[in-house]
Amino acid sequence: MQHSSNLTVQEYLSRREAFINDERSLRREHARLLTLSDAETQADRVVRQIRAKEAQMIWSATNDGMQHMFPGMEFLMARDIIVKTKLFDILTKMPKGALLHGHLDAMVNTRTLLRLALEQPAIHIRIPNALTSSSIKTTLPQFGALPRGQWASSPSLTHAAYKSGEWVQIQKARETFDASLGGPEGFDNWVIGCLTINPAEAYVTHKTTDKIWEKFASIFRGLILYEPIWYPYIKEFFRTSVDDGISFIEARINFGYKCVFLLFSHAWPCQTMCNAEGHNVLPAREWVRAFGRAVEDVKREMKDQGREDAFLGAKIIYTTIRMYTPEELEWYLEECLTLKQEFPDLIAGFDLVGHEDSLHPLIYYLPQLLRFQERQKELGIDVPFIFHAGETLGDGTPADVNLYDAILLGTKRIGHGFSLAKHPRLMQICKERGILVEMCPISNEILRLTSSMPTHPLPIIVNHGVPVALCSDDPAIFGNMGLSFDYFQVLVSSEITGLTTLGQIARDSLEHSTLEGEAKAHALAVWEKRWQQFCKEVAALEP
Amino acid sequence: MQHSSNLTVQEYLSRREAFINDERSLRREHARLLTLSDAETQADRVVRQIRAKEAQMIWSATNDGMQHMFPGMEFLMARDIIVKTKLFDILTKMPKGALLHGHLDAMVNTRTLLRLALEQPAIHIRIPNALTSSSIKTTLPQFGALPRGQWASSPSLTHAAYKSGEWVQIQKARETFDASLGGPEGFDNWVIGCLTINPAEAYVTHKTTDKIWEKFASIFRGLILYEPIWYPYIKEFFRTSVDDGISFIEARINFGYKCVFLLFSHAWPCQTMCNAEGHNVLPAREWVRAFGRAVEDVKREMKDQGREDAFLGAKIIYTTIRMYTPEELEWYLEECLTLKQEFPDLIAGFDLVGHEDSLHPLIYYLPQLLRFQERQKELGIDVPFIFHAGETLGDGTPADVNLYDAILLGTKRIGHGFSLAKHPRLMQICKERGILVEMCPISNEILRLTSSMPTHPLPIIVNHGVPVALCSDDPAIFGNMGLSFDYFQVLVSSEITGLTTLGQIARDSLEHSTLEGEAKAHALAVWEKRWQQFCKEVAALEP
Repeated sequence: MQHSSNLTVQEYLSRREAFINDERSLRREHARLLTLSDAETQADRVVRQIRAKEAQMIWSATNDGMQHMFPGMEFLMARDIIVKTKLFDILTKMPKGALLHGHLDAMVNTRTLLRLALEQPAIHIRIPNALTSSSIKTTLPQFGALPRGQWASSPSLTHAAYKSGEWVQIQKARETFDASLGGPEGFDNWVIGCLTINPAEAYVTHKTTDKIWEKFASIFRGLILYEPIWYPYIKEFFRTSVDDGISFIEARINFGYKCVFLLFSHAWPCQTMCNAEGHNVLPAREWVRAFGRAVEDVKREMKDQGREDAFLGAKIIYTTIRMYTPEELEWYLEECLTLKQEFPDLIAGFDLVGHEDSLHPLIYYLPQLLRFQERQKELGIDVPFIFHAGETLGDGTPADVNLYDAILLGTKRIGHGFSLAKHPRLMQICKERGILVEMCPISNEILRLTSSMPTHPLPIIVNHGVPVALCSDDPAIFGNMGLSFDYFQVLVSSEITGLTTLGQIARDSLEHSTLEGEAKAHALAVWEKRWQQFCKEVAALEP
Repeated sequence: MQHSSNLTVQEYLSRREAFINDERSLRREHARLLTLSDAETQADRVVRQIRAKEAQMIWSATNDGMQHMFPGMEFLMARDIIVKTKLFDILTKMPKGALLHGHLDAMVNTRTLLRLALEQPAIHIRIPNALTSSSIKTTLPQFGALPRGQWASSPSLTHAAYKSGEWVQIQKARETFDASLGGPEGFDNWVIGCLTINPAEAYVTHKTTDKIWEKFASIFRGLILYEPIWYPYIKEFFRTSVDDGISFIEARINFGYKCVFLLFSHAWPCQTMCNAEGHNVLPAREWVRAFGRAVEDVKREMKDQGREDAFLGAKIIYTTIRMYTPEELEWYLEECLTLKQEFPDLIAGFDLVGHEDSLHPLIYYLPQLLRFQERQKELGIDVPFIFHAGETLGDGTPADVNLYDAILLGTKRIGHGFSLAKHPRLMQICKERGILVEMCPISNEILRLTSSMPTHPLPIIVNHGVPVALCSDDPAIFGNMGLSFDYFQVLVSSEITGLTTLGQIARDSLEHSTLEGEAKAHALAVWEKRWQQFCKEVAALEP
């Protein structure tokens, strides 16, 4: 009896192994597991050992300020701990492939952006009322470049004589910032606080999706729409991305001139880009041209440093906000086509952005979007849709239903696709047609679609075999600069995911980029070489 | 051009409808949608209208105490609002079919249980130290029935002379409860606070799964393991379930005599059931016999009230805790078989319970579980496994992997299956083999697997077409008595789910119960009749 029972246990165990393996084979890295190099195998093992050790030594700790620690915990509270881990240090060196989903407005560290702005005498700042120790917590500034003739000599933002909406030169505003509010350093902290989301906002005062979007939407634009800042800003973005192991970029740029800001309870028109003289006139083609110049310049820099392979270029996904009328959208679609004709190598796709739960769904613009595709045929050009869709907790809401329309309209990839896990057929289609999902785990967490990484749907999507890329979305606002933080949070939140999975994700980001033909083959070959080198270095580490 | 473009829009819209419909057809209520009675159609419409109205009027409100309201929000904060809604009132009248996942220890309102206990002079209470205004917040009591000779005459729990671990008669403890701690009412509130989870615990002090389980595990047992309470307790459970529209019950009873409680920093052995004389001797067969007597008594009561169809019976899922050694488990498995032979109509299945993330996985007991199946063949009886599995946030952890073992071992249903959404193949198998998932949405939320209902994986499971039942798990601890609260939270968190979906879920609970043959056919027919009547009443409501 004992013997026959043992036999049954053996039979069971071999059936079990096959059963688990059969499901795991749906994952995209699975085929790869059979052909790993020794270095890859060993590197994956080292990373798992370090992860297990840090889960125990670092993420199980408790202290007064941080009662509930766990791997993949709330990013804004975990960040200072993450940067000290060995695992994070490893990931900063990993070649990440492409950054496929990042909004240009929020791609450079806020402190750096402020430094760039302080160098420009044309940049001004205004607020609704003079700042006091009580109003400073809730007062948001607006920034703008003014023509030389209008440069202001107004008093300090913190002076009782300050009048609502008066422009003050940013450098002067900083110098005259009242000592009781911290002086110049207090100015920096206040501005940076306005341009980022802090833990108290995400996890206490604004902890639902709708509320945190109010804060989030208040942050955008302003400082970078000035030609003398725009160009160095983009170069800074490229350089820091390269430093994080990103070798190719598709940046979403918002060409929404007509947007208005709801600030101080009344709407102010959003400026277009100002030229160096502070005139509100710089046309979109100049934005694109400067972007192209930054690409070439940083490529040249890298070549001069003997790091030619570190940066293979960048393109633009033309976006505008899903708040316009269909007629207004037509204007933007035409502008996008015009730009594509002038800059065929820079314009990579079209997208609509903004809070899906409250703004217009794709179906609202159906005739215009269909017409856009016809126009491309007429013009003999190709501008694929790369739509945001399903960035929502809804089940059957318009934002969730956007996923059907994105796919029916032939989207090349899906931005966010947070609710895709609810759609068995759509996941199957994404898999069959190779529609990659640009997942933004830290963005989703801070914008309160998930309370922390262990509850994020990414493992569902990955286990179904849908191709994904990891993306930072708006890192200047969230604090997840580069891609290392998003890779980190994903790696520590699953026992299945390992370094091999991350490698597949990086490879897929290039595979599903808008690179084509030889350029894509080159990018993949360069990445593979860097990857093997990286794995060798990790394999040699002490776990 | 305009015309051809219009045509394309039309073509698109009809493709879109078919596309969405194709995916929705995977849902279990889909076939039903084609054959709805007029009353069902109208009732579904009325419910959607009320839901939309209440989403706007009730769940979008804000006030100081409740900054972040939304449909499906944290249950412990929403409960007082839910009970005042029209939607909830409707759901309390809905025929719910079977309650398939509820732990007997926690099925009766705590205040009622305390009332039952206060009637028994044998019931005693003890604590580690005399209660003071500072210690009361962290002190948990233990309860026990003592033989008459040992009835205590100890001083009050709140008297300085109280010695650690001394038993005090519960009635006396209440009467002598110090006025500074609220007197007898203060006693009730303290005991009830110890036997339930409050919002501050779930959402502030214990807000991770591991931490809230510490509180949760401290609550179980004690008061009901006394024959004179056991029997009226079970009757109370059946009666209140019937009042909530539940017509059949499969209760999990924990036969874990050998468990120990970790209280006051040292382990106390857990008592088995005491008989009326307070002797710690009542064998399991008497527990089961009393359960059977309660079933027959409540059936008779219902018949006498002309409500014969309201209660079709109850069975027991024999459970023990996944903390024993494999050898110890063998003993329980044998006891389960013995009970099944004596009470073939009452013992419905076998399960292992307890915190999956920290206790033993199914595979740990593999030889014993396989042997259990062999033993059934030898004895010619059938005790299906109805396993807890996947009650975890893990991805590839032992608790998550329990899902594979549950299915390989032929589980009839899956308890919780929270992580099932991560398993495409397993969802497919559940669908094909009709393995229903006993989902416990409010339990999952309070035990912090999800921060609120909109982030719960239920819609994923439902959209994939896996059969589900809604279950209350441990309602005395969570406050979700009956099934109406769980149905409510699910209904308000999806635009796809409507009354028709809830009807399908209720029907499936009977379809996948352990009822068989004529008994099942009868239960379904009775439910269908009550359902149509219910829909007529809802259809007639003013939205």
